[in-house]
Amino acid sequence: MTTRLINLNADLGESFGAWLMGDDPALLQIVSSANLACGFHAGDPLIMRNTVRLALAQGVSIGAHPSFPDLQGFGRRAMQLSPAELEATILYQVGALQAMATAEGGRVSHVKPHGALNNIACADAAVAATVARAVHSLDPALILLAPAHSELARAGEAAGLPVRYEVFADRTYLDDGQLMPRSRPGAVLHDAEQCVEHVLVMLREQAIVAASGHRLPTRIDSICVHGDGPEAVATAQLIRQALEQAGYRLAALDRVG
Amino acid sequence: MTTRLINLNADLGESFGAWLMGDDPALLQIVSSANLACGFHAGDPLIMRNTVRLALAQGVSIGAHPSFPDLQGFGRRAMQLSPAELEATILYQVGALQAMATAEGGRVSHVKPHGALNNIACADAAVAATVARAVHSLDPALILLAPAHSELARAGEAAGLPVRYEVFADRTYLDDGQLMPRSRPGAVLHDAEQCVEHVLVMLREQAIVAASGHRLPTRIDSICVHGDGPEAVATAQLIRQALEQAGYRLAALDRVG
Amino acid sequence: MTTRLINLNADLGESFGAWLMGDDPALLQIVSSANLACGFHAGDPLIMRNTVRLALAQGVSIGAHPSFPDLQGFGRRAMQLSPAELEATILYQVGALQAMATAEGGRVSHVKPHGALNNIACADAAVAATVARAVHSLDPALILLAPAHSELARAGEAAGLPVRYEVFADRTYLDDGQLMPRSRPGAVLHDAEQCVEHVLVMLREQAIVAASGHRLPTRIDSICVHGDGPEAVATAQLIRQALEQAGYRLAALDRVG
Amino acid sequence: MTTRLINLNADLGESFGAWLMGDDPALLQIVSSANLACGFHAGDPLIMRNTVRLALAQGVSIGAHPSFPDLQGFGRRAMQLSPAELEATILYQVGALQAMATAEGGRVSHVKPHGALNNIACADAAVAATVARAVHSLDPALILLAPAHSELARAGEAAGLPVRYEVFADRTYLDDGQLMPRSRPGAVLHDAEQCVEHVLVMLREQAIVAASGHRLPTRIDSICVHGDGPEAVATAQLIRQALEQAGYRLAALDRVG
Repeated sequence: MTTRLINLNADLGESFGAWLMGDDPALLQIVSSANLACGFHAGDPLIMRNTVRLALAQGVSIGAHPSFPDLQGFGRRAMQLSPAELEATILYQVGALQAMATAEGGRVSHVKPHGALNNIACADAAVAATVARAVHSLDPALILLAPAHSELARAGEAAGLPVRYEVFADRTYLDDGQLMPRSRPGAVLHDAEQCVEHVLVMLREQAIVAASGHRLPTRIDSICVHGDGPEAVATAQLIRQALEQAGYRLAALDRVG
Repeated sequence: MTTRLINLNADLGESFGAWLMGDDPALLQIVSSANLACGFHAGDPLIMRNTVRLALAQGVSIGAHPSFPDLQGFGRRAMQLSPAELEATILYQVGALQAMATAEGGRVSHVKPHGALNNIACADAAVAATVARAVHSLDPALILLAPAHSELARAGEAAGLPVRYEVFADRTYLDDGQLMPRSRPGAVLHDAEQCVEHVLVMLREQAIVAASGHRLPTRIDSICVHGDGPEAVATAQLIRQALEQAGYRLAALDRVG
Repeated sequence: MTTRLINLNADLGESFGAWLMGDDPALLQIVSSANLACGFHAGDPLIMRNTVRLALAQGVSIGAHPSFPDLQGFGRRAMQLSPAELEATILYQVGALQAMATAEGGRVSHVKPHGALNNIACADAAVAATVARAVHSLDPALILLAPAHSELARAGEAAGLPVRYEVFADRTYLDDGQLMPRSRPGAVLHDAEQCVEHVLVMLREQAIVAASGHRLPTRIDSICVHGDGPEAVATAQLIRQALEQAGYRLAALDRVG
Repeated sequence: MTTRLINLNADLGESFGAWLMGDDPALLQIVSSANLACGFHAGDPLIMRNTVRLALAQGVSIGAHPSFPDLQGFGRRAMQLSPAELEATILYQVGALQAMATAEGGRVSHVKPHGALNNIACADAAVAATVARAVHSLDPALILLAPAHSELARAGEAAGLPVRYEVFADRTYLDDGQLMPRSRPGAVLHDAEQCVEHVLVMLREQAIVAASGHRLPTRIDSICVHGDGPEAVATAQLIRQALEQAGYRLAALDRVG
């Protein structure tokens, strides 16, 4: 049996000033890539730098996690920015994180939009194209981390960016590959064992396995686990162990796919 | 007579959202280097990008103009940040501007702190060292633009950064080379002809010429003109003409010194 | 001929920190009511207080002009807040302005939402109800200033608030009483004489007179003029003169209707 | 033995958006007065309103806890505002909280500055006078809650405000009544039993009892306990029990003194 590579990513660096969120040091020992907040929904400059340093020390590859400018709403509220505003807003955040990485001797290797921006970019081709254009204009070698079967993934491919495809360990899917809306029962898996099973089935099938049982074949490069919540560390650890027992080896995003 | 090179710099990109400040398109036709606000005292992402594009189109070299995080106070209010906070705050802003420059096919070639941060960095060796360390950790080839005889200039030299020395066209000086405090009469020259004369005398003498007439020899690489106020464009234009008539040729910061 | 009363209102206090917008001192000599920014789209605390003082000195009645929290977008970008968030956001801003008024010996007598919040509240009954509920919970005597034939006006009436009805001097209308979208030609009247004529016709007919010539009968308590732009003061002055020549006397909002 | 009244206060409502701080529901069952963040160092509008509601339900009197505008620094970084800026900044925050209280059928009965603003106001007579002037201009019946022997207490008295005097349960004192700087060993009491003993001794002596044993007679109306940290609730509960066992009855600020 050849060793297959898989990436495990989480949204980290989401503290702000005096407020803590998540157990970043613990999660950075588990995941292989970290999507770091860039100051617009979380993550002030000092937290960005310190989290970059921790990630580099753990060999975790660094991604920018740009957001709408909405600290109070944690980037979860839809905002209507013009394409030019949105493009500049993404450049700004990714550039700020790149500076932290450079100062710490590392680099930003991927970008994954956050929250409401990600939701919209996954569903709206025009917004997705704006995101992809911003990333490409900064560095065409930056990996775009996007859900399989999303407009964002398609826009990244069209722009010529390297795209890596993620599935969510704790979210269930509709038949068309979209996430089950949070408003519907069963949208979120709260049990760690369930998350593990969900991940293993999708990897085995190389498909998004919907709640209905429907299989939508897809390439899966990365598993997204949650960084906050009381069970985050334990669940992430369980998923990592299950992946390793199933013969996977964790790798940074630029090593998979 | 050999042609001597001199740099003319101004603080630009200081609009924010719906609010305009200064006539950037006009000033970018006059100056040779622009210090661009990075979002903390002025300059939102879209304004940053648009001003970068304008500057590049005019062949004006681009500098970052980082500030304390104080939009309401325009970065003019002293704040007490820890060294680590300040260093990360500078990295963040310079990185954000670098992304704009990269996306537009240019680069950031210098850094000049803004407002209260600049005032403190010119007088406080510890703050100056923090600023220099931040700039150096990002790119040791970044030029630090600092007043002659300031702690900031000394810290830049000590850090091994290329330092360029500026004098102010419309500010008078004390015998030790410090700016006359704004609270004292005659601190600011409001007459364009006076500004021109002030600049020409300092260049001829290669010295800071204090209000008392005292001469403090110094290297002068750049003249700072103001970007806002009703007379800014006319005064800058007059100074540029006077420099050219005196045999100087304007050049980007990395060409002088 | 009996003297009829009419109110003239404008959005003022929209400077922020070092950035100026509009000529508030001049406009406060013309209008009878001012809608003052409350810090979320414009208007920092000092500007709020100073504008309150100026308004009181001119006998201009004061209204709060609450917005989505979006300084960079000047409150013009739609945001999705939950009803509870929106209600608290409005309370916060109106309360802040009330404190300024109290400290200056005056009071806030009306509320008019700003920008994107106003647009949405005029079209969306649920948002309108949230705005009305916030205002009512603070003070049921606060006047809600709303466009005639808007959901906002209806929600104010349903909540038991005193509602005053405004028309815009420089905006044209559709047959159903909604504003012509700015994207369509002729949506905005740029000529001062045209604005005057538009206002006088609507007052004479006591109707919204659409671009098509269609008349939609409505009560008109107030004329909204713009506070920014190079022609704002001259246009406002012309409208005031025309109103006075037509036999109207300007009055604060609580005197009309 | 007559029952003596004492107030127990804590800084609450210091969450922001998605970030939690402290266990407000638990502490509101212990303290008799709550100093609520007003959005400038913590506490967004929705958190303000919800905390006001909780406080009123528990019969806890409400105070405003205004701060420098510094969310990232949690209001702990010194800023230099002009007197006019500072005065307006305080009015703004207190007014915003008053609106929440009004909407919930309650009222703001006291003001206590937060963090760096409080530190400066306790030591600098001019800043103290500005704070007192702001509070008085809003409502001369607002109680100013200030450390005994502080410039802030003196300024409140001079302005004619009702002043209530607090001591800190977990901070030790210098002989002149000032807090031991945090940089010195023993400045903060981490042991709950020590806090209880510290409070009981000061109440018995009606004096600030310095670390040296020196006694500085003072009136004590209120004990300040901390709202955040893992031990906050348990320590507060222990202090309350000790006070009640010592014959004190807890009362709102306007009932003591």
